Amino acid sequence: MKQKMIDVSIHLFDKKGFTETSIQEIVDELGVTKGTFYYYFTNKQELLTTIHLNFIEFLLKKQEEILQDEAKDSREKLRAMIYMVLQSINERKKSARIFFREMRNLGPKYLEQNVEKRDQFRKNLQQLVEEGIHKGEFQEDLHADMVTRGILGMTNWSYYWYNPEGDVSAEELTDIYVEILLNGINKSD
Amino acid sequence: MKQKMIDVSIHLFDKKGFTETSIQEIVDELGVTKGTFYYYFTNKQELLTTIHLNFIEFLLKKQEEILQDEAKDSREKLRAMIYMVLQSINERKKSARIFFREMRNLGPKYLEQNVEKRDQFRKNLQQLVEEGIHKGEFQEDLHADMVTRGILGMTNWSYYWYNPEGDVSAEELTDIYVEILLNGINKSD
Repeated sequence: MKQKMIDVSIHLFDKKGFTETSIQEIVDELGVTKGTFYYYFTNKQELLTTIHLNFIEFLLKKQEEILQDEAKDSREKLRAMIYMVLQSINERKKSARIFFREMRNLGPKYLEQNVEKRDQFRKNLQQLVEEGIHKGEFQEDLHADMVTRGILGMTNWSYYWYNPEGDVSAEELTDIYVEILLNGINKSD
Repeated sequence: MKQKMIDVSIHLFDKKGFTETSIQEIVDELGVTKGTFYYYFTNKQELLTTIHLNFIEFLLKKQEEILQDEAKDSREKLRAMIYMVLQSINERKKSARIFFREMRNLGPKYLEQNVEKRDQFRKNLQQLVEEGIHKGEFQEDLHADMVTRGILGMTNWSYYWYNPEGDVSAEELTDIYVEILLNGINKSD
């Protein structure tokens, strides 16, 4: 029931917005009483934070696997990570939209642990950029922090527009983004 | 009074969210009656769409100026446009956040004209990428549409994290992003 409640809420929060969705609507959708809701969650914020944590923890787990893959060099890890983010945002589109849009509705109590994990995700990517610099795969004078922000901008923004049913698959989009990031769009003179 | 009402609403919508802000709160803040509100706006959606249109029209105007600057080649136009977006999002941070977060609260009637202008902004940037390809400044095999999405991701995402009071100025961030986009982070073997 807990997972069902989470799934129904993801659907409603994405469709109507977190603030606009009442606990009554959630339990009506499931054909249960409010008592059932309060058996699993203290309030709507706690449900929202569960959705957020599920999403970011899923991404962190996938990210760790890539970081620890010793068969890959930094460039390959970068590619794998970009593909993973595009793919995950796309596969879990509703959760992704709720994650990016509804963060500020968490309230201070739940916000902190979410922000911590979100920051961890960014720091892991930055660590990969730094590793690539250190190993001589990426240029040595890079501003690793800002490069990381730029990569996250490219990938995260996909939640706003990307439709893999369109002309470009997640694999192709990964290739395009990796090519820009590694080699740029400049034509050598 | 209309501009004052817009300014107060930008502040409240950013702080509390569009749905959570009532017309009563807006007029209370200004010390006027609801009648004054309805003199200028049919409803809250119309006020929101005015905020959105002001923001995107400001960006479009700046963008047209850059596109029409014949003294600049495509690379310089790209740099100018990235700087303009970072700078504008930062200078109008509250409007930018409302623009990106509250789009879906516009309702179908107002959404259309906003989406049209937002699409125009993207198409103008894509036109610049295509111009650069055509003139031999950018590589000829680029997927102009996806490259444009990537650039917009890097710049638009700045609304989410960028604080120019921090270590990196808008000029420096522009340099970093332009350098990645033009030349990539790869170290040549």
